[in-house]
Amino acid sequence: MTHILDKYKDIDEIKNMSLEELNIFSEEIRQFLIESVSKTGGHLASNLGVVELTLSLYKVFNFKKDKLIWDVGHQAYVHKILTGRVKDFSQLRKYGGISGFPKREESSFDIFDTGHSSTSISAGLGIARARDLNEDNYEVISVIGDGALTGGMAYEALNDLGYNKTEMIVILNDNQMSISPNVGGMSKYLNKIRIDPAYNRFKEEVNNQLRKTNMGIGLANSLQKIKGSFKQLFIPGMLFEDMGIKYLGPIDGHNIDELIQVITLAKNIKGPVLVHVITKKGKGYDFAEKNSNKFHSIGPFDCDSGEICSIKGLTYSKVFGSEMINLAKENKKIVAVTAAMPDGTGLNNFADKFPKRFFDVGIAEQHAVTLCAGMATQGIKPVFAVYSTFLQRAYDQVLHDVCIQKLPVVFAIDRAGIVGEDGETHQGIFDLSYLTQMPNMTVMSPKCTEELIYMLRWAANDAYGPIAIRYPRGTDNPKVKLSPLKEFFRGKWEIIIDEGTIAIIACGKMVQTAIMVREKLLKSGIKATIINAEFIKPIDKDIIKKLVHNDYKIIIVEDNILHGGLGTSILEYANSLGYKNDILTLGYKDKFVTQGNVDLLYKLHGLDVDGIFHNVLKFI
Amino acid sequence: MTHILDKYKDIDEIKNMSLEELNIFSEEIRQFLIESVSKTGGHLASNLGVVELTLSLYKVFNFKKDKLIWDVGHQAYVHKILTGRVKDFSQLRKYGGISGFPKREESSFDIFDTGHSSTSISAGLGIARARDLNEDNYEVISVIGDGALTGGMAYEALNDLGYNKTEMIVILNDNQMSISPNVGGMSKYLNKIRIDPAYNRFKEEVNNQLRKTNMGIGLANSLQKIKGSFKQLFIPGMLFEDMGIKYLGPIDGHNIDELIQVITLAKNIKGPVLVHVITKKGKGYDFAEKNSNKFHSIGPFDCDSGEICSIKGLTYSKVFGSEMINLAKENKKIVAVTAAMPDGTGLNNFADKFPKRFFDVGIAEQHAVTLCAGMATQGIKPVFAVYSTFLQRAYDQVLHDVCIQKLPVVFAIDRAGIVGEDGETHQGIFDLSYLTQMPNMTVMSPKCTEELIYMLRWAANDAYGPIAIRYPRGTDNPKVKLSPLKEFFRGKWEIIIDEGTIAIIACGKMVQTAIMVREKLLKSGIKATIINAEFIKPIDKDIIKKLVHNDYKIIIVEDNILHGGLGTSILEYANSLGYKNDILTLGYKDKFVTQGNVDLLYKLHGLDVDGIFHNVLKFI
Repeated sequence: MTHILDKYKDIDEIKNMSLEELNIFSEEIRQFLIESVSKTGGHLASNLGVVELTLSLYKVFNFKKDKLIWDVGHQAYVHKILTGRVKDFSQLRKYGGISGFPKREESSFDIFDTGHSSTSISAGLGIARARDLNEDNYEVISVIGDGALTGGMAYEALNDLGYNKTEMIVILNDNQMSISPNVGGMSKYLNKIRIDPAYNRFKEEVNNQLRKTNMGIGLANSLQKIKGSFKQLFIPGMLFEDMGIKYLGPIDGHNIDELIQVITLAKNIKGPVLVHVITKKGKGYDFAEKNSNKFHSIGPFDCDSGEICSIKGLTYSKVFGSEMINLAKENKKIVAVTAAMPDGTGLNNFADKFPKRFFDVGIAEQHAVTLCAGMATQGIKPVFAVYSTFLQRAYDQVLHDVCIQKLPVVFAIDRAGIVGEDGETHQGIFDLSYLTQMPNMTVMSPKCTEELIYMLRWAANDAYGPIAIRYPRGTDNPKVKLSPLKEFFRGKWEIIIDEGTIAIIACGKMVQTAIMVREKLLKSGIKATIINAEFIKPIDKDIIKKLVHNDYKIIIVEDNILHGGLGTSILEYANSLGYKNDILTLGYKDKFVTQGNVDLLYKLHGLDVDGIFHNVLKFI
Repeated sequence: MTHILDKYKDIDEIKNMSLEELNIFSEEIRQFLIESVSKTGGHLASNLGVVELTLSLYKVFNFKKDKLIWDVGHQAYVHKILTGRVKDFSQLRKYGGISGFPKREESSFDIFDTGHSSTSISAGLGIARARDLNEDNYEVISVIGDGALTGGMAYEALNDLGYNKTEMIVILNDNQMSISPNVGGMSKYLNKIRIDPAYNRFKEEVNNQLRKTNMGIGLANSLQKIKGSFKQLFIPGMLFEDMGIKYLGPIDGHNIDELIQVITLAKNIKGPVLVHVITKKGKGYDFAEKNSNKFHSIGPFDCDSGEICSIKGLTYSKVFGSEMINLAKENKKIVAVTAAMPDGTGLNNFADKFPKRFFDVGIAEQHAVTLCAGMATQGIKPVFAVYSTFLQRAYDQVLHDVCIQKLPVVFAIDRAGIVGEDGETHQGIFDLSYLTQMPNMTVMSPKCTEELIYMLRWAANDAYGPIAIRYPRGTDNPKVKLSPLKEFFRGKWEIIIDEGTIAIIACGKMVQTAIMVREKLLKSGIKATIINAEFIKPIDKDIIKKLVHNDYKIIIVEDNILHGGLGTSILEYANSLGYKNDILTLGYKDKFVTQGNVDLLYKLHGLDVDGIFHNVLKFI
């Protein structure tokens, strides 16, 4: 069925394709995407939205020389298909397979590794400046979504770009969505442009000009002449013009003809240009168009019905979301804040039930944290729900705006520990280290989904200072049944099983693993004390003292890097006691953790039941 | 001489002052500021710039109820003078004295602690939303400089503010400067407004309206009626209007009459308003007007001559700046990046000599880091010079954009360790912890200014990956003479003195202190090995093995928090070797370090020669 795609080998072929062929090719790519992602899972909707845009960019530019940077990067599948990786899609996001994001080590066409939002203009600007310093000659194009444009660093980069007039093109891929619909003044502004009559005037004018001149340099020259009148057409984008960046658009991102014309125009304009392209997330696949949110990042699904194959249990996110509703009913001071992730963090129902107490600030973690700090000074109890990896963006705000003032903000940190298929950029394995180094911070982790309920409840009613609760992606291990703690005392741990002279101290989900390790040890005749370190900070000094003074062999297990985590805190305290015990710390070594199935990754890093079991045997 | 200030007791008095009295009061405050800061040192120029603005705010609002948030906060001296703290200015920025920044624990008029840039709109917005949720009734005003507006989080907050139409006032204090003159598209845009003819039209119109109506609500009502024509007057600030925020201005920030009129207007407009105020940094003190840079943050000086009393030695910043010039001459791939700190980081001369290889991106550390990452992908060697405390803003970019891709960016981290008078918000005591937790990162620190030269040279020629070099504020201890290392081998330390079975491992400036401790120990008949850990990451495993296996007592000294720093890394490795030695780690405990003289703070934290000496004695 896929005639062009089947034979397609090299990006140069796109140069020779007719408009008709490009349109057919688009459809073929779209079909391939739907079928392929239905089997592997992955980011679908965002990629369906940029099929024509990507093809048009390849038609106009020469990416054997020119540089294309994808913001966030989960929309780079078409780009990967065009650059020799069709055959690798069966291994998409799998361990050892191709990444769901651009990776420099994967292809010379991947110019900059991405994953987090709003970095592409900065990176592109760096590359463009390097080009000028190196006296090279190529084009630099950054493609950024309107969602990513809500992130402050994108604005910092535009500010620099407009001021210094560096030669580069920014493609604003405006689908009116981040993962969920966008918020913010900028989003409202872009919306105004979309419905501005100048939109149509712009398109007509471009077409008129194209009829009069040859496409390309001729047009750009003629553009200089009619600058005055053209200026009027740019008015929808005056905001960008005010910052010193030429604005073109908005244009229809699914019309290849129009795309090629305007991108060519942009190519021939001197200085920085922003091309405003309107696309539809999920374009061409009904289910994804109607529910782009569900099809943003999705597991394997049935193509015909759009139904997701695997049904997940009660996830931590869902438990969090529903307990937030309970808490909000009881305490009217409680509010929820998200940075463009109402779905992912489980806050959708909360948003429906308490619209005035729900704040989606866009992809703006820095602002989110300081907003919470401001609220907390006035007796409001903000809960900021955020993925571990994205909270990294607000390290300074957590430290400087929340911790110094010891403000009682709750950080509900989802997707902590290994998250799996999204790989290096998304693993939440640094939070225990960067949060425990902040004075005044309390850091907790529930051993099971049910414990999250009580922990959140405790944190929401605590006024001592900032509290971070970190919990993993997914749900509980069905093989382990644990009773949740319902009461908490700052810095006091739970001794789940108290026997033998080996103690395994674990936190969060690793407690479930530790229980299974203990069963395995018992079968080998080895007794072990199992401790749930539900407080990662402060640690339970009494328990450590007891273990140290009674010559326990101590094993610490955490779903975090070793340096600066729970194990380190215990080591530091034990050292201050002059311990001579044996202490083994298990976690991630000083390397980034690649993509792959979560269980496989645990196994590879020795954090599955067998791995820990064998490590303990060796240790004792 | 100061008649009003002498008698002044309470902010309510300002309400009753005539325009003439307010002008006299301004002059008195200005004189007080100059004389007081000439004795204590502090931030002068920014405060001289906001005397009239602050008084006008106090005239219009009631800050016993309304909330005033100062961005950065170093311009809050006038605010402190007006709120009962005149008498405390002799102890400004001293240990136990009043802070140079707003501090909630210092006064109920200080609403939010600041220090870092660009947080005030987020904090103000949080407070305004808390007000609405609590059904309280007060005004919220955030005062932000045009420099702080180059920081991305300010834009994130404006984006949220404009979209959600929260009731609050943003005062844009536009002095065309951060610490140095501003850069960026926004700055250019503001400049365009300043010279726009509408500026004068706006002023006339306000005056006309004021003649026709009574000041206040009457005016706001009449404003609604003439909205159409008024809209035209707002055009200079269309960018803010586009984001959904009413714009008023620009107005003369030294004309109290005009200020009061327009701020009153702003107070009576529904929804978010931005008032654009043009001020002059250093206003009213000739030396500071001419050289606001020098008078931004200054030590004690002579009022009549403007000369600074103390002359500093060759600082690390100066050494860095001049070596950068040498390196740039030799290697044309080397470029320098700063986030609005060309002076403070010592890059001024570099900027003059290599303007095309110097990039000042504004107060935009996030963008700066990813810009460097982009450059590094193309063989350029960027050196980002930044204060330790400000690099916290870019934690995620260092980890996500630089370290994952292992890009050879050099971070020249100035003001690391204790910086002194600026207090909690500015101490650079977290960097060793947050940088060593990042895979692929190399972290170094020179033991003396001269070693910085060779270290920088080594880093600039190394292509292994990212390298952070951290060095302190100020200069060398004149009592210690050390020979710099000229060659470096990744992860290899220098044994400066090799004797006895006690080893003191120190890094950076602490090596100088360790040398003096050793002399003192020798006098007590105790021999000690002194090791310069010029690599904080990776650590020298061979040396640690040797010390561990030969039963050394090990003392680690660092100008950083204990958790996750150099001592921790050594502890972690020693533990993995199964050490049974005694190890003592010295650094800052889990608390923020307050303001005060650097030497005093070292003493208070046991990191001066005596403190370490006694700790060592107790330990061995």
